[in-house]
Amino acid sequence: MTYCVGLKLNEGLVLLSDTRTNAGLDNISTYRKMFFFEEPGERAIVIMTAGSLSVTQTTIARLHEAISDPDADENTSIMKAGSMLRIATIIGDTLLDTRREIAEHMRDMQGMAPSASMIVAGQRRDGHMRLFLIYPEGNFIEATDDTPFLQIGEHKYGKPILDRVVRPDTSLQDAQKAVLLSMDSTLRSNLSVGMPLDLAVIRADDLRISTSRRIEEGDPAFMEMSVAWSNALRESFIKIRI
Amino acid sequence: MTYCVGLKLNEGLVLLSDTRTNAGLDNISTYRKMFFFEEPGERAIVIMTAGSLSVTQTTIARLHEAISDPDADENTSIMKAGSMLRIATIIGDTLLDTRREIAEHMRDMQGMAPSASMIVAGQRRDGHMRLFLIYPEGNFIEATDDTPFLQIGEHKYGKPILDRVVRPDTSLQDAQKAVLLSMDSTLRSNLSVGMPLDLAVIRADDLRISTSRRIEEGDPAFMEMSVAWSNALRESFIKIRI
Repeated sequence: MTYCVGLKLNEGLVLLSDTRTNAGLDNISTYRKMFFFEEPGERAIVIMTAGSLSVTQTTIARLHEAISDPDADENTSIMKAGSMLRIATIIGDTLLDTRREIAEHMRDMQGMAPSASMIVAGQRRDGHMRLFLIYPEGNFIEATDDTPFLQIGEHKYGKPILDRVVRPDTSLQDAQKAVLLSMDSTLRSNLSVGMPLDLAVIRADDLRISTSRRIEEGDPAFMEMSVAWSNALRESFIKIRI
Repeated sequence: MTYCVGLKLNEGLVLLSDTRTNAGLDNISTYRKMFFFEEPGERAIVIMTAGSLSVTQTTIARLHEAISDPDADENTSIMKAGSMLRIATIIGDTLLDTRREIAEHMRDMQGMAPSASMIVAGQRRDGHMRLFLIYPEGNFIEATDDTPFLQIGEHKYGKPILDRVVRPDTSLQDAQKAVLLSMDSTLRSNLSVGMPLDLAVIRADDLRISTSRRIEEGDPAFMEMSVAWSNALRESFIKIRI
């Protein structure tokens, strides 16, 4: 499985994904699930993927192909599309087409329907920051002030902390802490989500990937945070009275 | 859905269940999901249920029927069975038979296979405390010192706190706190789990339901704990540095 989470805050967009993929339990690999599409000063888009690697890789490859096409226009290329809404639509359509094609190849294998979902975050010049969750069917929902975060993959373990601390006015610093702690809970409770992690921030109106970094297994800062959070939870637990 | 959790600790067994059932989103009711079978001084058994109400109610009714049967023996009645293992087997078999019968009635409705799972906890005289999770197919797994808790229903939201604090030597007081906080996280993040709650404790070698209580919506102690935990999490969150 996978865990990816995106936050849309007043100060910007915060994205975090793990990198573990598995085909069965004995075929585990590391694949990047966070993809950047950027023309600094004009637009910055981050896509995160969950689901069948065959579907997500092909979808991303086709998005790149469409961008490179000399005939690319605002209806085919996410680097030319006139709005984030249009970008989400192109990605959703590409995902659906890819899924349908693969499903057609597998039509003799009942119940084997490879699927995938995506989170799309970004902003283009003269537009607003937007954050979408794209369903396997290509339709999508958008983060709002009431629900400033979206998750794909193994989302349940890490939801309680987000429910409690993430608001639109949460700072980017706190937001990064929140997604890392949300991931930390997921890593501890579910083997199918694994290090390293990819973390990215697009500041509001920055129109570029403001910061991005890979957090490797054993990263000292992440481990320290993880231990500090465990200790804080245990101390809080001891203090609570029933 | 449902959330039920059982802990097997050195000091005893701790069980907690919610009471929400729903058929669709607009048909929500309250049903008890925790059932006691007790002959004080001889045996104490708690069953918690998750899944289709038609399956779980019928299974529980049949277990009662088998107990009342004048010909009841140690192979049919959980109040006569010679071991907790035998008790788990009877419950698993009854669950499977019930599921199969209902599925047979619904054979024309493809994909409509009502299912259920259960947690069984208890101890009988001269035996050890045991805690089982019974699958819809009637087979089961047992809690061990390595994994001293079992969950059914919406188990993911409330797993991180259990992973962090529950050990076999956790006190019964702390264990009750742990399951209530685990439930609190689940209640906050998932609408299909709801108050009131049923909490029960079987102390080691007590051979009776040592304590049991219903925690109603708005219970002052539970609300206070919930608020204190939220505040503690937020304070811990603020203190963590990345």
